[in-house]
Amino acid sequence: MPEPAETIDGWYCLHDLRSIDWTSWKRVPVDERQEILAEFTAMVDEWIDNEKNEEGSYALYSIVGQKADLMFMLLRPTMEELEQIEKAFNQSRLAEYTIPAYSYVSVVELGKYMFKGEGDPLEDPSIRERIFPILPKWEHICFYPMDKKREGDDNWYMMPAKDRGQLMYGHGMVGRKYAGYVKQVITGSVGFDDWEWGVTLFAHDVLQFKKLVYEMRFDEASARFAEFGPFYVGNVLKKDKITGYFQV
Amino acid sequence: MPEPAETIDGWYCLHDLRSIDWTSWKRVPVDERQEILAEFTAMVDEWIDNEKNEEGSYALYSIVGQKADLMFMLLRPTMEELEQIEKAFNQSRLAEYTIPAYSYVSVVELGKYMFKGEGDPLEDPSIRERIFPILPKWEHICFYPMDKKREGDDNWYMMPAKDRGQLMYGHGMVGRKYAGYVKQVITGSVGFDDWEWGVTLFAHDVLQFKKLVYEMRFDEASARFAEFGPFYVGNVLKKDKITGYFQV
Amino acid sequence: MPEPAETIDGWYCLHDLRSIDWTSWKRVPVDERQEILAEFTAMVDEWIDNEKNEEGSYALYSIVGQKADLMFMLLRPTMEELEQIEKAFNQSRLAEYTIPAYSYVSVVELGKYMFKGEGDPLEDPSIRERIFPILPKWEHICFYPMDKKREGDDNWYMMPAKDRGQLMYGHGMVGRKYAGYVKQVITGSVGFDDWEWGVTLFAHDVLQFKKLVYEMRFDEASARFAEFGPFYVGNVLKKDKITGYFQV
Amino acid sequence: MPEPAETIDGWYCLHDLRSIDWTSWKRVPVDERQEILAEFTAMVDEWIDNEKNEEGSYALYSIVGQKADLMFMLLRPTMEELEQIEKAFNQSRLAEYTIPAYSYVSVVELGKYMFKGEGDPLEDPSIRERIFPILPKWEHICFYPMDKKREGDDNWYMMPAKDRGQLMYGHGMVGRKYAGYVKQVITGSVGFDDWEWGVTLFAHDVLQFKKLVYEMRFDEASARFAEFGPFYVGNVLKKDKITGYFQV
Amino acid sequence: MPEPAETIDGWYCLHDLRSIDWTSWKRVPVDERQEILAEFTAMVDEWIDNEKNEEGSYALYSIVGQKADLMFMLLRPTMEELEQIEKAFNQSRLAEYTIPAYSYVSVVELGKYMFKGEGDPLEDPSIRERIFPILPKWEHICFYPMDKKREGDDNWYMMPAKDRGQLMYGHGMVGRKYAGYVKQVITGSVGFDDWEWGVTLFAHDVLQFKKLVYEMRFDEASARFAEFGPFYVGNVLKKDKITGYFQV
Repeated sequence: MPEPAETIDGWYCLHDLRSIDWTSWKRVPVDERQEILAEFTAMVDEWIDNEKNEEGSYALYSIVGQKADLMFMLLRPTMEELEQIEKAFNQSRLAEYTIPAYSYVSVVELGKYMFKGEGDPLEDPSIRERIFPILPKWEHICFYPMDKKREGDDNWYMMPAKDRGQLMYGHGMVGRKYAGYVKQVITGSVGFDDWEWGVTLFAHDVLQFKKLVYEMRFDEASARFAEFGPFYVGNVLKKDKITGYFQV
Repeated sequence: MPEPAETIDGWYCLHDLRSIDWTSWKRVPVDERQEILAEFTAMVDEWIDNEKNEEGSYALYSIVGQKADLMFMLLRPTMEELEQIEKAFNQSRLAEYTIPAYSYVSVVELGKYMFKGEGDPLEDPSIRERIFPILPKWEHICFYPMDKKREGDDNWYMMPAKDRGQLMYGHGMVGRKYAGYVKQVITGSVGFDDWEWGVTLFAHDVLQFKKLVYEMRFDEASARFAEFGPFYVGNVLKKDKITGYFQV
Repeated sequence: MPEPAETIDGWYCLHDLRSIDWTSWKRVPVDERQEILAEFTAMVDEWIDNEKNEEGSYALYSIVGQKADLMFMLLRPTMEELEQIEKAFNQSRLAEYTIPAYSYVSVVELGKYMFKGEGDPLEDPSIRERIFPILPKWEHICFYPMDKKREGDDNWYMMPAKDRGQLMYGHGMVGRKYAGYVKQVITGSVGFDDWEWGVTLFAHDVLQFKKLVYEMRFDEASARFAEFGPFYVGNVLKKDKITGYFQV
Repeated sequence: MPEPAETIDGWYCLHDLRSIDWTSWKRVPVDERQEILAEFTAMVDEWIDNEKNEEGSYALYSIVGQKADLMFMLLRPTMEELEQIEKAFNQSRLAEYTIPAYSYVSVVELGKYMFKGEGDPLEDPSIRERIFPILPKWEHICFYPMDKKREGDDNWYMMPAKDRGQLMYGHGMVGRKYAGYVKQVITGSVGFDDWEWGVTLFAHDVLQFKKLVYEMRFDEASARFAEFGPFYVGNVLKKDKITGYFQV
Repeated sequence: MPEPAETIDGWYCLHDLRSIDWTSWKRVPVDERQEILAEFTAMVDEWIDNEKNEEGSYALYSIVGQKADLMFMLLRPTMEELEQIEKAFNQSRLAEYTIPAYSYVSVVELGKYMFKGEGDPLEDPSIRERIFPILPKWEHICFYPMDKKREGDDNWYMMPAKDRGQLMYGHGMVGRKYAGYVKQVITGSVGFDDWEWGVTLFAHDVLQFKKLVYEMRFDEASARFAEFGPFYVGNVLKKDKITGYFQV
């Protein structure tokens, strides 16, 4: 059974959600809007280049409902780079027409027990591709942060490691059933943000999020021990659709 | 007894609530107000056409109290369409005089055990009309999101499916007593929004909401296991009353 | 013992609380302020006329502390009328200098067990005056919403009706001790707003609110089962004091 | 043992906390700033006169941290006077440069068991000086509201009066150890505001707040039964320092 | 075993977090921006001088994510000095382009049982350097406030001092494993702010925060008894990087 703190950690992760101030945006002259979007698109190009160079990854989605309009998910080797990307956006002209909606700071993590080999797990390619993942650009995204409960008899952190391991195994089995349908990226945020983990799911068919999360709710690891933060669901926003998205 | 995750899912659903900034609205010249309302009414016409073509459905209500002024409830085959409708409204001129108040993202769902037939439930007309419903335009609406509790001994998701089924059966019996008085649309939001279900009720007599919800509170499924989010209650706003509603 | 859902319901009720933007108000020229207050006073006159005609009732109080400045409590036969009153105020010129602070939607209710007679309780004059009450214009008001708890062993809705009845009887006995000192209006809001009931108290001596609510807190119905929302306390604002109140 | 509801109540109490909008304040021409501060100082003079006449009392402190900048604590014989003071400040020119941060409405209270004499406790001078207190102008203030818990086995209001009395006695003993170091004013707010009591402490040495509140946390009355609201800590702002405080 | 209230207290502590209004900042002419930053840098110079004179200490970090942009952590001998620093910043020109995000008021504390010597612990150099610490300027900071739980059987304050001591000993052992990797400053805030303690961690490698906090979550003192507030994580902002940070 894995020791509690034993995770293999990869790229740092920023989820950055923004609402658009459409009223102000509409008032911007067309020419200026084009300049602003060109500046933003150039930023996205940098994210794409960075990903091509395997120095990080990105995802860009539009969120359904009033909670936010856009979600950037960015992976980078250091916290400093995450701050720089965030600041670069904040200082961009497009940011003048957006309102911060939510953000989440974490790091891609993998339970050490996933590593069956010997030596340094960071040199194992199958491990590397999980902790330094290239994020899918599938049609839909679902993001939510969560905790393990510590209440009365339902205290995850007071359970023997063996029992925790068994529950997590059953939990993982549910996830595995959705292989090919839902891609899951787990990021740890203990010490970084208000919840303990961030869960980001990608799917071609948005209904798979509901099926997966609902089915998991019945396994004991979730039923007794999970506490969930806000849920965000969105549609992919490809680079060549950005101009269309901002068309008013 | 139904397997937990077994639901039949239909149209995606957006509840979108807005407050009106009456002070700004009053300052708009009469001519311009008419243009703005014409644009909005044209949008409602599209919703009506869409409904006629059975490609979705809509409801338009005014909300009582300060929580919001208007509620749009929109059903569509895809998340992308929900996003487009929301964006179309956000980009409309009327939106400049509204403030987002609340939104909810879900999908119309039906427990699979409701389907007694064989073959594909999506081809059964009685199922289809429940998961692709034409929303009533009755005098009143009541909307609230809810969860099933997971606390100590009151943990819905740790109960055997059989016990859950019995509780839901009793719960359904209460609902059935109100047939003809209250029309109920259940939407699932696990993985889509912060609560697990959205409940939307329609009635000719607003008092029926209180009677129904209060009576249900005493059945064990609600008494022990329900957790409720905010409640919104409203009056129907028919298309030909929109101009009157915005008269200042 | 009463069946749970059996209440006799009367007028619909809106509590509408507003804060005043004194800085903007002071900037309004004196003449204009007089016009604005004349418009508002005319609205209050309508409320008074409506009350004289026994078609509803109203209360107008100023709230102590920063939570709000004014509270309107309005009773009407329909939800539509409540919406209209609210909208009329929102569209008034005075509303431009107020900020929504809180609102509550409910209906005056009476436990059916209060009705000892036969036939239709709505034809019993003593019942009628309780569910279609003329609100007192006593010196002070206290308003708070509340729920009955559903937590572990303290689950109101899982108790036998007989036990609930006994607890409510004891609860009522405390209230009765304050007859003549505190007038109490109970409104039900299940299905209408976020709490299950609204409690509105009127008193000549504001200290009676504290005595009553504190004494009640020790009866089991409150001690074990009550959950309270925000409390608002205020002083009566008679029509002929409105101008003085808005004097700057 | 005291009967639960038996308290002796004195002056009504308003805690009014404000943040200063320094950016706007700096933009005010020096002359105008002096006029504004003269108006405010005149208001404080009225508070001082009122206190000299034993018709109430006041405290004026600056708060540390972003929660607020100023705290007024005002005692008066009636709720109407509290409202008037609050409105007078709201209508003052200084208020244009402040933002409401928090307020609390209560009444100075004393457990009746503190009165050992006979006859009317309101005629006993030692009682009078506790319920009509002249607030100290000591260097530091600490204010927080609190409730007695009603959860499962930890339900203060379900305990026999005798047990409550013993716990309060032990609680009082801790407080007594700090006599001369910390002056404590207890105000009751059941029926007036969102918590049941307000606790206001005064000290020459701010560290005494931490020692007192921390030591009390271990007595059973607090450990099992206290629920705390926000804490505010501040430094005395004497009248002759007001101008200096607002110097920019 | 230490008596509960027995702590040795040192410098008072203010955590002050701010968001930057980049849109307004960008609109400031370059010359003016330089003047504003010169004023701010002069303020930081005062903090540095104060630290050199051992009259306090400071830390300046940029925060990752939308919760804030900057965090000042300031230690001073008195609450009055904390207020003055805060006010000096509020009145500075840079403050016009920042928005308050969070603050926390506390005092550096040490359990008295840490003092093994005789006489006055305040004269013991090893104690002095822990309660009057010079804050590290390491690459990363992590700040979060916390409480000890008081719920049902998990009531820290109802446990015998000996049991508490043992749990804290185990807790300390985990912390000690990170010596050299994570520097930890504990500040007490009972009576000063909304949580009981503030925890500030410094590290060269930001991942050490996650490892430490996660490992601690499994010791009983945290697993059963800790309740956590918001977490803030950031990167050091050295004085010579300030101009670069504000470059737009």
